[in-house]
Amino acid sequence: MAGDVFGRALRLISFGESHGKVVGAVLEGVPAGLPLSEGDIQWLLDLRRPGQSSVTTTRREEDRVKILSGVFKGKTTGAPIAMVVENEDVISSYYEEYFHRPRPGHADYVARLKYGGFNDYRGGGRFSGRITVSMVMGGAVAMKLLKLIGVEVMAYTLEIGGVKAENFTLEDVRARYRNEVRTPDGEAALKMREVIERARRKGDSVGGIVEVLALNLPPGLGEPIFDTIEGDLAKAMFAIPAVKGVEFGSGFKAARMMGSEHNDPYIIRNGKVSFASNNHGGALGGMTTGAPLVMRVAFKPTASIAKPQRTVDLRTMEEVTIRVKGRHDPCIVPRAVPVVEAMTSLVLADHAILSGYIPKVLEGAPDGGKGEDKGGHPEDL
Amino acid sequence: MAGDVFGRALRLISFGESHGKVVGAVLEGVPAGLPLSEGDIQWLLDLRRPGQSSVTTTRREEDRVKILSGVFKGKTTGAPIAMVVENEDVISSYYEEYFHRPRPGHADYVARLKYGGFNDYRGGGRFSGRITVSMVMGGAVAMKLLKLIGVEVMAYTLEIGGVKAENFTLEDVRARYRNEVRTPDGEAALKMREVIERARRKGDSVGGIVEVLALNLPPGLGEPIFDTIEGDLAKAMFAIPAVKGVEFGSGFKAARMMGSEHNDPYIIRNGKVSFASNNHGGALGGMTTGAPLVMRVAFKPTASIAKPQRTVDLRTMEEVTIRVKGRHDPCIVPRAVPVVEAMTSLVLADHAILSGYIPKVLEGAPDGGKGEDKGGHPEDL
Amino acid sequence: MAGDVFGRALRLISFGESHGKVVGAVLEGVPAGLPLSEGDIQWLLDLRRPGQSSVTTTRREEDRVKILSGVFKGKTTGAPIAMVVENEDVISSYYEEYFHRPRPGHADYVARLKYGGFNDYRGGGRFSGRITVSMVMGGAVAMKLLKLIGVEVMAYTLEIGGVKAENFTLEDVRARYRNEVRTPDGEAALKMREVIERARRKGDSVGGIVEVLALNLPPGLGEPIFDTIEGDLAKAMFAIPAVKGVEFGSGFKAARMMGSEHNDPYIIRNGKVSFASNNHGGALGGMTTGAPLVMRVAFKPTASIAKPQRTVDLRTMEEVTIRVKGRHDPCIVPRAVPVVEAMTSLVLADHAILSGYIPKVLEGAPDGGKGEDKGGHPEDL
Amino acid sequence: MAGDVFGRALRLISFGESHGKVVGAVLEGVPAGLPLSEGDIQWLLDLRRPGQSSVTTTRREEDRVKILSGVFKGKTTGAPIAMVVENEDVISSYYEEYFHRPRPGHADYVARLKYGGFNDYRGGGRFSGRITVSMVMGGAVAMKLLKLIGVEVMAYTLEIGGVKAENFTLEDVRARYRNEVRTPDGEAALKMREVIERARRKGDSVGGIVEVLALNLPPGLGEPIFDTIEGDLAKAMFAIPAVKGVEFGSGFKAARMMGSEHNDPYIIRNGKVSFASNNHGGALGGMTTGAPLVMRVAFKPTASIAKPQRTVDLRTMEEVTIRVKGRHDPCIVPRAVPVVEAMTSLVLADHAILSGYIPKVLEGAPDGGKGEDKGGHPEDL
Repeated sequence: MAGDVFGRALRLISFGESHGKVVGAVLEGVPAGLPLSEGDIQWLLDLRRPGQSSVTTTRREEDRVKILSGVFKGKTTGAPIAMVVENEDVISSYYEEYFHRPRPGHADYVARLKYGGFNDYRGGGRFSGRITVSMVMGGAVAMKLLKLIGVEVMAYTLEIGGVKAENFTLEDVRARYRNEVRTPDGEAALKMREVIERARRKGDSVGGIVEVLALNLPPGLGEPIFDTIEGDLAKAMFAIPAVKGVEFGSGFKAARMMGSEHNDPYIIRNGKVSFASNNHGGALGGMTTGAPLVMRVAFKPTASIAKPQRTVDLRTMEEVTIRVKGRHDPCIVPRAVPVVEAMTSLVLADHAILSGYIPKVLEGAPDGGKGEDKGGHPEDL
Repeated sequence: MAGDVFGRALRLISFGESHGKVVGAVLEGVPAGLPLSEGDIQWLLDLRRPGQSSVTTTRREEDRVKILSGVFKGKTTGAPIAMVVENEDVISSYYEEYFHRPRPGHADYVARLKYGGFNDYRGGGRFSGRITVSMVMGGAVAMKLLKLIGVEVMAYTLEIGGVKAENFTLEDVRARYRNEVRTPDGEAALKMREVIERARRKGDSVGGIVEVLALNLPPGLGEPIFDTIEGDLAKAMFAIPAVKGVEFGSGFKAARMMGSEHNDPYIIRNGKVSFASNNHGGALGGMTTGAPLVMRVAFKPTASIAKPQRTVDLRTMEEVTIRVKGRHDPCIVPRAVPVVEAMTSLVLADHAILSGYIPKVLEGAPDGGKGEDKGGHPEDL
Repeated sequence: MAGDVFGRALRLISFGESHGKVVGAVLEGVPAGLPLSEGDIQWLLDLRRPGQSSVTTTRREEDRVKILSGVFKGKTTGAPIAMVVENEDVISSYYEEYFHRPRPGHADYVARLKYGGFNDYRGGGRFSGRITVSMVMGGAVAMKLLKLIGVEVMAYTLEIGGVKAENFTLEDVRARYRNEVRTPDGEAALKMREVIERARRKGDSVGGIVEVLALNLPPGLGEPIFDTIEGDLAKAMFAIPAVKGVEFGSGFKAARMMGSEHNDPYIIRNGKVSFASNNHGGALGGMTTGAPLVMRVAFKPTASIAKPQRTVDLRTMEEVTIRVKGRHDPCIVPRAVPVVEAMTSLVLADHAILSGYIPKVLEGAPDGGKGEDKGGHPEDL
Repeated sequence: MAGDVFGRALRLISFGESHGKVVGAVLEGVPAGLPLSEGDIQWLLDLRRPGQSSVTTTRREEDRVKILSGVFKGKTTGAPIAMVVENEDVISSYYEEYFHRPRPGHADYVARLKYGGFNDYRGGGRFSGRITVSMVMGGAVAMKLLKLIGVEVMAYTLEIGGVKAENFTLEDVRARYRNEVRTPDGEAALKMREVIERARRKGDSVGGIVEVLALNLPPGLGEPIFDTIEGDLAKAMFAIPAVKGVEFGSGFKAARMMGSEHNDPYIIRNGKVSFASNNHGGALGGMTTGAPLVMRVAFKPTASIAKPQRTVDLRTMEEVTIRVKGRHDPCIVPRAVPVVEAMTSLVLADHAILSGYIPKVLEGAPDGGKGEDKGGHPEDL
């Protein structure tokens, strides 16, 4: 059982390689009746696209999405939605070397072991960050589904190279894409940029933390014991290259708190049950509570760096030094932000369908939808 | 949970519509190292293709497969294989009428109920026989996998419009594609052709039975209690439009046999355990026995016929008469033969992988495959 | 991936062996709030239980179900329902012989191959008809779920040993359990009994056909392309030991019909869309149409017969003759009837949940159920 | 789709409630031929069992495991293994109150919303830490499977209430169960005990961090893109109550490292490819690398504390103060250690089976196992 299928009620299938013809996705289980155009997907792809600013790789990809199926008269049909993006600016010549001299921090060596060397190693193949294009395509549709029930999913850069976003409001979060590092704290944004530029100049790279905020979630999303909302989200995050850690609410800080301090008291607010604090990060018992979902995702520094590095030559079994060529992001975090949003949205929309919050046929059907058809049921044969 | 994904270790995802841009498939879980070209798929598509003879529809489709991913240097990589065929000869104008006046024997009415009328009804959309293109693309790859372990899967027309193939040898079965009705009995072939022609002239259609023979299967394929080999095959068959029944070995005749007559005695043949007869049809306890797998699949007569038919108009709720336009096969059986082969092969290859008969990395790897890498395991950190 | 789990929204897990401590089941995905007691399951187990009449085995089992989890204050909780039945009247001594001298028509030989001889072969182990106890336990709960939406599932003996039920009404079907062969045709019942008795006296066995009728199904159950309602039902049927064939509506007869004869015209009946006939058997395009679902299931004659039979001794690789001891049904069909009902109900209830016809929380909740809780959602943190 | 099933090739089904009759598990997919007794499971249950020391709850449970199926002649058969532990020392009276006055930090409120109040709330029901009994039963079997291929999985307390284990060797890790806080650093153990005792005296609780080390893993476990080894492990961890974060290798620290510092150089050690450091924590590209797998799991302080806490009364919608009665652990970390080991082992064994490192039939079969049977295959019918 290979691992290219994700989700249950809403399933994303990823295909394609970094230097192959396309990167593609099939999204299955999308309710019928959702207005959907290529533009609904393109905007999020554009946010992920390389070559947009000085903090990203210089690889240039138009990343134009084409919808191949599942949409009719501008709306989803209930059938699977296939989407592809063509690969254009491909320079594969570098990669022959890395097949024998694996790049530190990359999957080269273990991919070769697992697939017997048959894997498409050009540009990292299936293990390239470029594969996140398939996540973004699926996630953009998931986001549209979530909007139907008022859920808002926002990821943003919380920290890069030790610089932390500290002063910001919800409005700043909503404006996160205004700066190229996608952080809600404008002052921190400048410093983060500097840190990234410095790393680039040294032929090095930096990591960071992405925080996710999901607002207005219905309570009860998540299926205990094993398909918890945190578990499904964490699994989704680790599908994104370079992720090293995931935490919710208080996260690792919880380990140093007292129970009396950590437990969020129930209170009445505006006549409704609410919480006085949000150490739980919006999830208890594996289910959303209705409080804002707060997740943080740690990214390691980009593995591809210009500096010389130690590795081995698998032909001679000697230790050697390589310089990783190619065009790379000195910090992957800004471009990871829309990817984190996409994967988060896929998980939440999947659970919202599973829990019945999003119906299988949306409103506005030509017939008014199932059950309202004038034809009725042929029950009396 | 929509139903566009099939299989477990080897998973086929189908997408596309009859009159959309493409019909496509993603095949996931194919072991790395299988030589694969478009030609390996095209030949089976060609056998399914419309417009080949007087017994089929006049819709003309080139049905040229394009492999989009999963193959590198002529071999599979272990990554998902995406394949598409473009739709070309599309005439959709007829179908507006059928949306409101559902064609008897088709899914029009219930598809409209299920998807609230959002479904792409042109040419039957997802419910068209054209969707079997995705099955054939996946099945062609599965067949190549089965050949690695010597398994031979052959479907053929056993009966059409009451005419039954009765005199034939295994060699005749192997030559089944020599006649346009795909039957191993040459004499019956002529009569079947006649029956089909007669139906066509009357604006009517006929059904038939496809028999499948799978030879040289390893014993023990199938996972009881629920994932039996017969159950998985039967489920696969009912995914093919127009199938009304599936039976194995003695099948429905078993109901009229005595136990002493039905039980296949174990014997020694050439020093090995074998069976004196094959009423069991190659499966016992939900598992292959190593005896030839014998399955029969009943197809109803093509639902699309030129004769006037009674239906209702869903707008006025009045009974009306329609004539189904479009180009249709007066008998679907001949073109179903390669589809049955494809779906059978998918199930058998899936189980062969699950049971460990087909490894995840095939021989001939650049490195000799997993475990033989000069590099060894970094076990001693 | 072993095959002991069945279903998607409603999942049945089977465990236990014929001569082990228990036969058990876990049913997962049952909506919260269904009144459930052991009596709700026991009645169906009693219909399956051996030793009830002269047409069944003399093995005596109380088959008392015990619910171990998932029920609180007399209602389901949404948590998995574990159920067990203890094995009591076990005579295992016979079976040592069959390990080396496999019984014709049984899984003995191939089970030994598949599990390397580690399998519990006593009484057939996992391949015993006794394992259908787990299906019946799960199916009884599924039936209760279907009743909530008015669906009625009835299986009955259509044919045994060549004797066919021919004259009967829907009321006769509802009264099918009044005779020991479970057929709606009283006259045929007498003849079927005779045929069974005759087989028993000869140390032989007979097969038959079970027909299933499911009434009042909502249209649109089934998930094309691959998870069709017919496919899922067929797969369920092949999980029942001794099944050789499954057909819907016209079934294999469809192969000899003309399209103009087979297509069921749409008509208006009582102001609603209906069908003038039911050759389609309640399913089109892989989905229920609302017309009565009609399925027929062929059972082979019981493999265990008293007559001497040819087999091989796997130690000496010689052909030998065995007499199968133990207590067996000369015809399994009557006891298969409730098993077919159970498996049919599991599939239909699964799809009814998937399609949203059965909610995850039933009415009558202490709080009025999700969304009506006075507490409301803690949305404004 | 409820969430009580975990894994793919090796599937664990959990059932039971804290104050119901039993807590149970079914483990499916265990290869045939594994020697297995109740003792093989009991030892790990004993390590999880309450009432063992002053740092745990005073609830007394024998937690005697009973194997109900799947074992024959002392070895696994390939059939599902059902296991139960009975609940004994149950005091449910407290919990009526919490149904209406949800305990902060617990799932009470959201479980009530999700299941319409039908959930068994006694002792937290399905959301009790007691459900980890089912994880431990399954995990103990998984551990035996991993031992077959030399894999060693060890979890241990890294930190409690701010006290960190800092000085320890691999041998200390192996001896982690010698002290009641299960930490490899003896000096830290004393301080951790103190911190826990202090919290208990105050009617409060503390959290901590569990670290996991898995040694001798074969490279290539994990199925990219979505079923990564880190993702599956993280999902497993979030199934354990009270977990707030999961990280691998450098984890959240990676966010502040430079690429040149983080990338682990490949080196030759003892003639094999190895890594000069282990920031990657044993996984790259979603797959094990063969280097030691290092995971850390953050636990929040126990939610049940004796101190008075603010909550709301859902009947009156007023804010109230409650005191949570019952017997609770002032720190859950020590008892979580074997649970973390169990869930880690389940994931790793699942992937080891998927990758073919553990065969479906183990050695030592009565027949020498599949393929070596004297009988051979009945291929020539």
